Amino acid sequence: MKKDYKVIGFDADDTLWVNEPYFRSSEHAFCSLMSIFMEPALVQRVLFRIEVKNMPLYGYGVKALMLSMMEAAIEVSRDQLTGDMMKQIIALGKDQLNKEVVLLEGVKEVLDRMKHKGQKVVVITKGDLLDQERKLAKSGLDNCFHHVEIMSEKHESDYTKLLEHLEVEANDFLMIGNSIKSDILPVLNIGGYGIHIPFHETWEFEKIDLKVDHPHFMEINHVSELHQLLGL
Amino acid sequence: MKKDYKVIGFDADDTLWVNEPYFRSSEHAFCSLMSIFMEPALVQRVLFRIEVKNMPLYGYGVKALMLSMMEAAIEVSRDQLTGDMMKQIIALGKDQLNKEVVLLEGVKEVLDRMKHKGQKVVVITKGDLLDQERKLAKSGLDNCFHHVEIMSEKHESDYTKLLEHLEVEANDFLMIGNSIKSDILPVLNIGGYGIHIPFHETWEFEKIDLKVDHPHFMEINHVSELHQLLGL
Repeated sequence: MKKDYKVIGFDADDTLWVNEPYFRSSEHAFCSLMSIFMEPALVQRVLFRIEVKNMPLYGYGVKALMLSMMEAAIEVSRDQLTGDMMKQIIALGKDQLNKEVVLLEGVKEVLDRMKHKGQKVVVITKGDLLDQERKLAKSGLDNCFHHVEIMSEKHESDYTKLLEHLEVEANDFLMIGNSIKSDILPVLNIGGYGIHIPFHETWEFEKIDLKVDHPHFMEINHVSELHQLLGL
Repeated sequence: MKKDYKVIGFDADDTLWVNEPYFRSSEHAFCSLMSIFMEPALVQRVLFRIEVKNMPLYGYGVKALMLSMMEAAIEVSRDQLTGDMMKQIIALGKDQLNKEVVLLEGVKEVLDRMKHKGQKVVVITKGDLLDQERKLAKSGLDNCFHHVEIMSEKHESDYTKLLEHLEVEANDFLMIGNSIKSDILPVLNIGGYGIHIPFHETWEFEKIDLKVDHPHFMEINHVSELHQLLGL
């Protein structure tokens, strides 16, 4: 791994700030709400199946989750859903959209040091446009970044297009994130560098059973290890 | 109005392709579905009130409409909503997301001529990220544009940020669109040029009661008038 990169990309959700636990918490509340009809663990399986089915149409994010919850509720309740339950599902989603943004420990210091060093830093995230913009504004980090790219997907072609747009070669680009599948593998595949910082919760959909062994790849346990690794 | 601009921006929905009639059609179907509880015209008012209330949280787009329809249905039905009605609301939204993209007459020719002339053209649209990307891909127009910018809002500051990003002065920028409120006024206010092409349907939220009289502004009836205006 080299120390100097023209551009460093950060994933946002569960790399800069807490996200997945809020999704887990909404799902948990949903499964409890539906537990009068079905075992919570089974409800969760129905929800996950519907989320994955709807993914190509709805994409990622809280609104997509809300709509899939509605669909799961209809199925699980066998049409016995009440208006009050629907209200609770809507309230769950709205609460999640209104959640405070909690930065992960050490993130602010790393970004401050990068800024002080003149490092070009971009946020590269997928998800709902408005929701991600709102989180960025709430995070107070928005002046740490040269550019913010909110993508509908993080495939190789999406990274290639972004690097062209940023006018940087893959070999001068490092991506840092918590998802091997979305933040690391596609970047390694196009010739870039990747640092994985695992987060304690990973969405089923992002899980991947693969041990990465690549000269452009490293895994660290805490974002503050970047200080030494990148000479910050 | 001058003829030459470094960058020309096009709005997408109801400027390049048909959009608003699909929203009207979904709303109409929703109001019919709810007509066993309330007069369709009153249902529509409830829906509009809820859409506007939810706008800051949900933003624009079909998923936002679906969620607001759910909320309106709960209110209108006074909790007498059935699972079957909910299924129909979800189906309405999914149908709309899967609609074909129908280009407005003359659009393809104008864009081809601009491309042939070497004109830098960008799409500037608000709405749901995935939904707008999908429409652009379906439209077959994606190779006509130098850049695609999907914004959560079209305020002056959003245009200013985009023009900085594109490294163009407002004075060298022309925006073409069907919404005076979103496509024209903010651009005129920052010193750019605007051409308004009215579409036969305008969403209540985009309506504005204002006669624009500005040296940087023109209104035309058909996109093909651009050939002569811009020397294409």
